[in-house]
Amino acid sequence: MAHPQVTFRETVFKGKSLLSTRRETVSRSTVRAQLEQIRSTGRYDCFKLKWHPIYDDKSMWPVPFHLFWDSDIAKWIEGACYFLADEYDAEIDGTIREFVDMIRAAQQEDGYLNVHYTVVEPGKRWSNLRDMHELYNAGHLIEASIAHRDYYRNDLLISPIQKYVSLIRKQFGPGPDQIQGYPGHPEIELALFRLYSATGSTDAFELAQYFLTERGNPKGQDGKHYYDWEMEKRGDHPCMRPDAYPENRTYWYCQSHAPIVEQPTIEGHSVRAVYLLTAVADMIHLSQVHRRSLPDSEVWSQALHRLWDNMVDKKMYLTGGIGAVKQWEGFGIDYFLPQGTDEGGCYAETCASIAVMMLAERLLHLDLDGHYADIMELCLYNNVMTSMSLDGKTFTYANQLASSDTDKSERHEWFWCACCPPNVSRLFGSLGGYLWDYGSEGDNVSINVHLYTGAKVSFSANGAPVTLEQKSNWPWEGNVMFTLSSPSPLQTTIRLRLPAWSNGSYVLTPTPHPGKVEVKKGYLSLDPAYTADNPSFSLQVGGFRPRYLSPHRYTNQRTLTLARGPMVYCVEDVDNSWEKNHFKDTHLKVGSPVTEENCTDEKTGEEYVALRSVGWNIVPETTSPAGEETDGARELVFVPYYFRANRGGEGQMRVGLLNGGDKSGNTFPEKGGRIAPV
Amino acid sequence: MAHPQVTFRETVFKGKSLLSTRRETVSRSTVRAQLEQIRSTGRYDCFKLKWHPIYDDKSMWPVPFHLFWDSDIAKWIEGACYFLADEYDAEIDGTIREFVDMIRAAQQEDGYLNVHYTVVEPGKRWSNLRDMHELYNAGHLIEASIAHRDYYRNDLLISPIQKYVSLIRKQFGPGPDQIQGYPGHPEIELALFRLYSATGSTDAFELAQYFLTERGNPKGQDGKHYYDWEMEKRGDHPCMRPDAYPENRTYWYCQSHAPIVEQPTIEGHSVRAVYLLTAVADMIHLSQVHRRSLPDSEVWSQALHRLWDNMVDKKMYLTGGIGAVKQWEGFGIDYFLPQGTDEGGCYAETCASIAVMMLAERLLHLDLDGHYADIMELCLYNNVMTSMSLDGKTFTYANQLASSDTDKSERHEWFWCACCPPNVSRLFGSLGGYLWDYGSEGDNVSINVHLYTGAKVSFSANGAPVTLEQKSNWPWEGNVMFTLSSPSPLQTTIRLRLPAWSNGSYVLTPTPHPGKVEVKKGYLSLDPAYTADNPSFSLQVGGFRPRYLSPHRYTNQRTLTLARGPMVYCVEDVDNSWEKNHFKDTHLKVGSPVTEENCTDEKTGEEYVALRSVGWNIVPETTSPAGEETDGARELVFVPYYFRANRGGEGQMRVGLLNGGDKSGNTFPEKGGRIAPV
Repeated sequence: MAHPQVTFRETVFKGKSLLSTRRETVSRSTVRAQLEQIRSTGRYDCFKLKWHPIYDDKSMWPVPFHLFWDSDIAKWIEGACYFLADEYDAEIDGTIREFVDMIRAAQQEDGYLNVHYTVVEPGKRWSNLRDMHELYNAGHLIEASIAHRDYYRNDLLISPIQKYVSLIRKQFGPGPDQIQGYPGHPEIELALFRLYSATGSTDAFELAQYFLTERGNPKGQDGKHYYDWEMEKRGDHPCMRPDAYPENRTYWYCQSHAPIVEQPTIEGHSVRAVYLLTAVADMIHLSQVHRRSLPDSEVWSQALHRLWDNMVDKKMYLTGGIGAVKQWEGFGIDYFLPQGTDEGGCYAETCASIAVMMLAERLLHLDLDGHYADIMELCLYNNVMTSMSLDGKTFTYANQLASSDTDKSERHEWFWCACCPPNVSRLFGSLGGYLWDYGSEGDNVSINVHLYTGAKVSFSANGAPVTLEQKSNWPWEGNVMFTLSSPSPLQTTIRLRLPAWSNGSYVLTPTPHPGKVEVKKGYLSLDPAYTADNPSFSLQVGGFRPRYLSPHRYTNQRTLTLARGPMVYCVEDVDNSWEKNHFKDTHLKVGSPVTEENCTDEKTGEEYVALRSVGWNIVPETTSPAGEETDGARELVFVPYYFRANRGGEGQMRVGLLNGGDKSGNTFPEKGGRIAPV
Repeated sequence: MAHPQVTFRETVFKGKSLLSTRRETVSRSTVRAQLEQIRSTGRYDCFKLKWHPIYDDKSMWPVPFHLFWDSDIAKWIEGACYFLADEYDAEIDGTIREFVDMIRAAQQEDGYLNVHYTVVEPGKRWSNLRDMHELYNAGHLIEASIAHRDYYRNDLLISPIQKYVSLIRKQFGPGPDQIQGYPGHPEIELALFRLYSATGSTDAFELAQYFLTERGNPKGQDGKHYYDWEMEKRGDHPCMRPDAYPENRTYWYCQSHAPIVEQPTIEGHSVRAVYLLTAVADMIHLSQVHRRSLPDSEVWSQALHRLWDNMVDKKMYLTGGIGAVKQWEGFGIDYFLPQGTDEGGCYAETCASIAVMMLAERLLHLDLDGHYADIMELCLYNNVMTSMSLDGKTFTYANQLASSDTDKSERHEWFWCACCPPNVSRLFGSLGGYLWDYGSEGDNVSINVHLYTGAKVSFSANGAPVTLEQKSNWPWEGNVMFTLSSPSPLQTTIRLRLPAWSNGSYVLTPTPHPGKVEVKKGYLSLDPAYTADNPSFSLQVGGFRPRYLSPHRYTNQRTLTLARGPMVYCVEDVDNSWEKNHFKDTHLKVGSPVTEENCTDEKTGEEYVALRSVGWNIVPETTSPAGEETDGARELVFVPYYFRANRGGEGQMRVGLLNGGDKSGNTFPEKGGRIAPV
C-alpha cells in the first residue's frame, strides 16, 4: 500500500497557492522554530539518558511531563526528513544525524529503546500500558525511521528500530510468557503497518494485527481486562485514575471498553480513536492487496464504517474538528457540539483532524468516494490550518469555533504535551501524497485527483514516465488546468473529485462527447479516449458562491455559518471592532446579500477572499417578548477560519452566528414582562 | 426564627385543591409505601447495630450502599411526625416509637450515634468527612428529633441527639485538639440552626457557624485544605477519588474550593450547594433577629445573593430544576441547560428543588420579594411535584425535561440512595408552613401570603386569636377568596403575592379606595383600614392565559414551552400517540392558537387543565435547504409537567419543543444537496 508519507516524493508543488505558501512557511520557519523549542525545553538530549531536573517533578500522575519526549523528537525527525527532500539544509541535516546517533546509543542491549523506563523507572517496563505511552513513543520512532531511511537511503535509524520491534513482538502475544496487552494510546499499530509496507516485515504486520484484535478483550489476561490486570499487578487502588478518566474504569477513554469490532459508536480520546481506525483501515487494505489473512474482514470493515459514520454524521464540527470534551480530549455524546468552552466545550484537537485526514486518505483506497476526500479537504483547510499562525511559529492545540473571555482566539509557541505542532509539520511535509493516488496495471493507468492546487506528479507506469500537472488558484477559485503526459500505449483514466458543496456542477473543457464521461460517487471520470485526445484540459468546479451552513438541529446549535468552497468563515473583532461579547449576540438572516472581496493582508501578505454581509445584534438584556430588539443592522466582515488571530485584535472570534429566524431571547425563570403572549 | 417545619401546625388545608389532594396521597399512601421499602431493603433495624450482608459489599468506594440508612430512617420519622399531626395512625405511631427505641439503644456511651462507624468501621470516626456522610446523617437525626419533640411533646429522641451534638461540638473547632473540618455533604448546618431555634442551644448555633466559616479554608488544618489533610492522614493516594469527582481535588463538587463568602458562582452538587445556602440564610437571619454575633454579615449577605442570582438566572431550568450534570449531580457552567441526557444532561434532582424551596422560604424572611415566592412555587408545582406519581408510590430522582430511549419518562419505587422520596414526604407534611408567614408586634399584625390554595391559618397576636382563610382552585384559576378574623384592637396588614407571570394584573374586591393599596416587590399590601373594613375580600390574579416560555438564547435551547399560571406543560405520547422520537422533531410557532380544556382523568380522577395547540414535525432526514419540510400540521395535547407518566404510554415526553421560527435542519459536514444558498 502506498502511504502518502511515501508517495509525496513523487509530487512537486508548483507555483503560488495557499498550500504551497503554507508548506514554504513550515519549511523555512516552523521546522527551525520547533527545533528551538526542543532545545530550550530540554528535550534535545534526552536520548543521552542523563537525568533532567523535570524528571523529579512528580506532580503529574500518572503521566510525567517528559513522557512524550521520545515522540516529540521522532516526529520532528520525520517532518524534517520530508522537507529535506524538498530543499537541502545543512543545519537540519546535521541535527538529524545528531539525533540518530543519540537514539542509537540509547538503545539497550536487548533492543529496548525508551527514555523514561531506561532513566527514570528502570525495571518497570510494560507495567502501565494504559497510561505511560511506551508503545506510542515506539510507534513514532518507527515512523521517523521510515522517513529517515527514505531520505538518507541508509539503515542507521531503521536498523535499531527494527531490533526494538522484534523485542516488542516477542513480548506481546497470546503465548503463556507473553503480555496480552495493547497500548493505551494507539499509534504503533499504524506505524507497524507502514513498517510492513516499507520493509515487508511480517513481524510488524502480525504485531499490529494482534494489538487491534486483542484490544478491549474483557478477559484478555488471566480472565481479566488487561488494564484491570496490570492495575492489580501494580498494586494501584481501583479508584486511582488519571484526570482524563471521568469515572473509574471508563476504558472507552482509550477505546478499550469492548473489542473494536463490537464498538457501536466512536468514543473517548479523539486522536487515539482515529489513529486506531487508521490502522484498522490499513489492516483491511493490506489484507486485500497483500492477501494477508484477516479473519472476519467483513466485520472489521463494518466496524470501520460504522465508527466513521458516527464520527462524521454526529460528532464532527463543521470545521472538520472532532471532540467536544476537554477532560478526555474527545467525543461527547451524539450531536454534542457546542462552539466554545463557555457553552459546554469545543476541543477539536489539531492532531485529531490530522488523524481524520490520514484515515480519510486510507478510506479512499478502500472505496473511492468523494465523501472521504471532502472530509479530508474540510479538515485541511479549516481545523488543521487554523492551528498554525501565518508565520509558522505559534500553534493551537484545541480549535474552538467561538472564543470567550477565558479562552480567547490565540495561539501559543509550544505546549508541555507538544503533540500538535510537529504533527502539522509532518502533515505539510508529506502533503503531496494526499493530493492524488495513482497506479497502473499493465498499460492501464489511473489517477484519482482528490485535492486541487498547483502541483505536478511524476511516476512510472509499466516502465514509462507519466506526469500530470494541475494549476489553479484553489481554494479561492474553482478553475483547474491539467496537463497530462502519458506516452502511448498507456491508457490513462483520470478521476476528478467534484466536492459535495459544488452540487455536482462543473464544466470540463474541451467538452467531452455526450455520454463519454461519468460521475460516480463524487468523481468525474475521464476515460482514456478523452485523456488521449485532450492531454490538456480544464475543470471548472462550480458552487463557489458563498453559502450558509447550519448544524443539524439535534445539536441545539441554531446558527448560520458562511462558507465558500472548502473554506469555513468566521468573524473577528479585528474587522468588526464594535464587538465586545465574542459575537454571542450577533445574528444573521438567510437571504441577506453577501459580497466577496479579494484581499491582500498588509501585515502578512496573505491573499484571501473576505466576505461581507449584514448582521444584527440582539440587545443582551432585551425585554421585548420576541427577543428581537436589536441595536441596528451593521456590516459584518468574514474571513476564512484558518486566517483568524493573525492580525491583532482582542481575540474575539466566532464561526456560527445566531440564526436570525429565531424568536427567543427571554430570560428564565420569568422576570416581570419577559413573556411571549399567545 | 419560625421555620415552616414548625409553623405548618398552625395551618390546616381545607377543601379540595391540588395541594390538599397530593398531601392526602402522601399521608394515606406514601408514608406507608416508604416504610415498606425501609423494611424490605433492610434499613428498618439498622440501628440495632447487627451486621447486614450488604455491609460486606465493597464494590462502591468510598460510599457503601448503606451509608445513608441513618438519614433514610430519620427523614421518614420526620415526615411521619408531620402527618401524624394531621391524623393519628396507630401503626405509624408504633413504628416511630420502635425507631426511637432503637436509635436510643444505638447511642454509644460518649454520645456518638452512627451506624456505619459503630458497626462496619469502628475506630474510624471522623476520618473521612469529605465522603462518608457522617455529619449529614447527624443533621437528619437532629431534624427528626425536632419533629419528634414537636409532635410527641417528649424528649425521648431529642435528648440523645442533643448529647450527640454536644460531642460533635467538642470535636470540631479551631482548638488544638479539635478537628478543623466540616461535612462533605452540608445538611447539619441547617439542622443545627433549626435546633437553635427550637431549643436555644448556643452550642448548635456556634457549631453551625463554625462549619460555615471554616468551609473551604485553603489552610484549615496544619496549613492544608482540610480534605487534603484528612486524605493524607488516611494514607489515600491523591489520585483516588470518588466517581463524582471529575478530576482530582475538584472540591467545588462539595462547595469547599474556596470559603463560601469568596465563591463567585454556585458550583457542584446542587443539593449540597442549596442546603448550604439555606444554612447561610438562617445564620444571617438569626443573627439579625437574635442579635447573635456574625462578623462580616454584609459579606455573607452579598455571597448569599450572588450565588442565588447565579443559580436562578443562569443555572435553573424553567421547571425549577437545578443541576444539569449527572456525574456530580449538580451545576454545569452558566447557561448549560440541555433538556435530556441524550442532549448533554438534565439532572434536576428532586431534593435540589426541595432545597430551593427551603432557601426561597428563608430568603422571604430576609427580604419580602415576590421573586423568591415565584421560584418557590415554580419548584413546588413542577420539578418537585413531577417527582411523585399520583398514587404516591413511585418517584423520580432526576427530573429531565425531555425523555430519550435510554431515559424514558417513568418513575421508580425506590433508590439505593433514597434521599428523594422521604424528602417529598417531609415537604408535603410541612407544606402549610410555606404558604404564608406572619407575626405581630404589639397590636400590629402582618400576614404575608406566598402561595394560594384552600387553607386556614390560626395564630395568636398579642394574646388574641387571629385566623385567615383562603379558598381557591389555584393553580387552575386565579380567584382567591379570603376571610380574616382579627379582633380589635389588632391592626392587620395583609400582603398578597402577585406572581411575575401575572404581569401585575389583579382585581381586588371590594375595590380599595384609590391610593389605599400598594404593590411593592411583587406583593399587594392591604392596610389595616382595608382589612378592618373588609374582613372578607377576594383577589383575582390575572395572567392565567397560556403563554410561551423560551430559555435565554445563551442556553442554545431554541425552544418554546407552554405554561399557564405556575404550571409548566409538556407533551406525552399517551396523548400524541403518533410520536416515536420523543418529540425531538416537533416544533411550535408563536401565534398558533392555544385552547384550554378542563379535564378529569378517568384512571386517576385527577382534575387539571390541558392545553391544545398545533405543531409541525420536521421530517428527520429532510433535504430541503431551509430544513422546514414537515409532514403536516397536527394537533398537540399538552398536560402539566407534574402529571406526566401517570397514564401509560411509551415514556416519551418533552417540555421544550423546537421554536418554529428556526431555519436550520441541515446535516453537516455537508452531504450533497443539503445546502442553503445565499
